[in-house]
Amino acid sequence: MVSGPPKNNMLHGLDERTASIYSPVRDGLARVDDRLRSLAETETSPVQPLLQYVTDGGGKRVRPAITLLAAQFHPHDEERPIIMASAVELLHLATLIHDDTVDNSPLRRGRATVSNTWSPHVAVLFGDYVFATSATFVCDTNNIRVIRRFSETIMELASGQLMEYYTSFDASQARDIYQDRIYRKTASLFCTASESGAVLGEAPENEVEALRDYGYNIGMAFQVRDDLLDFQGDPSNLGKPVGSDLLNGVLTLPTIMLMERYPNDDLVQSLFQDRENDTKLKKVVEVINDSTILPDCEQVVQDYSHKACQTLQNLPDCPSKQSLLDLADYITARRR
Amino acid sequence: MVSGPPKNNMLHGLDERTASIYSPVRDGLARVDDRLRSLAETETSPVQPLLQYVTDGGGKRVRPAITLLAAQFHPHDEERPIIMASAVELLHLATLIHDDTVDNSPLRRGRATVSNTWSPHVAVLFGDYVFATSATFVCDTNNIRVIRRFSETIMELASGQLMEYYTSFDASQARDIYQDRIYRKTASLFCTASESGAVLGEAPENEVEALRDYGYNIGMAFQVRDDLLDFQGDPSNLGKPVGSDLLNGVLTLPTIMLMERYPNDDLVQSLFQDRENDTKLKKVVEVINDSTILPDCEQVVQDYSHKACQTLQNLPDCPSKQSLLDLADYITARRR
Repeated sequence: MVSGPPKNNMLHGLDERTASIYSPVRDGLARVDDRLRSLAETETSPVQPLLQYVTDGGGKRVRPAITLLAAQFHPHDEERPIIMASAVELLHLATLIHDDTVDNSPLRRGRATVSNTWSPHVAVLFGDYVFATSATFVCDTNNIRVIRRFSETIMELASGQLMEYYTSFDASQARDIYQDRIYRKTASLFCTASESGAVLGEAPENEVEALRDYGYNIGMAFQVRDDLLDFQGDPSNLGKPVGSDLLNGVLTLPTIMLMERYPNDDLVQSLFQDRENDTKLKKVVEVINDSTILPDCEQVVQDYSHKACQTLQNLPDCPSKQSLLDLADYITARRR
Repeated sequence: MVSGPPKNNMLHGLDERTASIYSPVRDGLARVDDRLRSLAETETSPVQPLLQYVTDGGGKRVRPAITLLAAQFHPHDEERPIIMASAVELLHLATLIHDDTVDNSPLRRGRATVSNTWSPHVAVLFGDYVFATSATFVCDTNNIRVIRRFSETIMELASGQLMEYYTSFDASQARDIYQDRIYRKTASLFCTASESGAVLGEAPENEVEALRDYGYNIGMAFQVRDDLLDFQGDPSNLGKPVGSDLLNGVLTLPTIMLMERYPNDDLVQSLFQDRENDTKLKKVVEVINDSTILPDCEQVVQDYSHKACQTLQNLPDCPSKQSLLDLADYITARRR
């Protein structure tokens, strides 16, 4: 069948740098977007309007881009990485639906959340539906290895969110707990994106492992950057106040470094015991800003990003490799 | 490896009739139970106590029993149906966790629900974890057909619950909507239990289809019986008042028959508009009891059950076939 140009160009709306990084997989990403949109078109009520809402929500599609880029190193069946990339994005959307529901978040990417627009009741069941749809997509790859990895990823994502909840407002957490938690809630899906892209892209096993390690490191960099932005960001960009993670009881790297450096101060514990007190949050943010903590966290992001690039050293040179390297830089530098 | 007798006998606590029906798969069910319990033993905090709580919750294990019985018609690898039966039971447990959360139910099988014991926040994320664990179990069957069917089932279960929510307090629903809804929310998983049992039991395709149809009909009988019990039951057995579905806005077969027979009365609509009014519920229950509706619903259960038995006509005679026939009778006759 000769198919025309894709109807929806998902690179539309991306900044120039991102569009340039994604260029080796531009057509593939457009097909991912078509697949997600056509899902909403074929479904019937009551699921149809919900699917349309979440698949229209934009986003940078970084996870499907990584899936497709990781698949480009060797000749392969083109369809299967596209199916996988669509599943990875759908899984990401499913986690957002449930995370926003349990966090009672009113907004996501500048739009009302499903929980807020419909109800928490609908959001829980619809999130289940999207999780299952993503898992059904993966079955079309006919590859048991990626299917299993995908289910394990859902377990990791859920357990990461549970860990975050259970450790909230606990000022005694060490850095290894933080690292385990952000691996589960974020880096796990990045790993699965790059690993399954490589598997379906017919890469040899040593390259699959290298690309999985790339996914791990880029995912960790992505989350530490996110956690940093919560302290540095322009609130108008983030849509939330500076230090909002901490206000919600979630310890991230800047706060953990603060506790490591000033073990006898109880700034964080004192804030957790008196959350309504604006002055205490301001004090924490001030101490962090007056120290080298933020640049030191920047260094952690750069270290992960550097490791991500190193993992690609022995892979064949190709435009996708360059894009993965550029993506690591881009994630290190991102400011929103 | 020679293994000793299973540690936990899951037939313990079942009534005599059920234990007798399950006897051809007694050992298999004990292994399913071991598998579910060992899941809790190997996990670490924060998931461990939650897993222990839900896998200790009892229940009749009717879905894993059907999976195992459907696998017994031909020589086969014994391990794979046991894996599948464990996955089916886990999936059922996952749906209960989310259903109880969205319905805000305090009790399930006489114990506090996860949502009630922990919190809705934990219940949503832990439900996701159990869904994903069940999907990971299914991967161990190494059979793409049953893996795909399993994901599609999760979609059907979620969409069935969404339909129930969207059609609640709508007194204009026809019987076909009801049938579609109860297929999705209940019969779908019974179908998957019997179909995947048959596939993994190496049954020929015509028998797989017959056993899937058995699952459909027994599942429909099961749900209509449940809906009937809501009107007939002894509240001390059910743990909820007579007519509680209707009070929650959920139309079931008795109420739909009422509206079919008295299209000009607005008894149900009037109740939906004035839910606090006890007299209106009593009136609906009274009109239903004074009509032939309840015996006619009984007939619907018997018809489904009869069809379930008919689907088995051409299958080879064996103890499992007799158990499936007996199970159909048992579900028709159950009173709690």
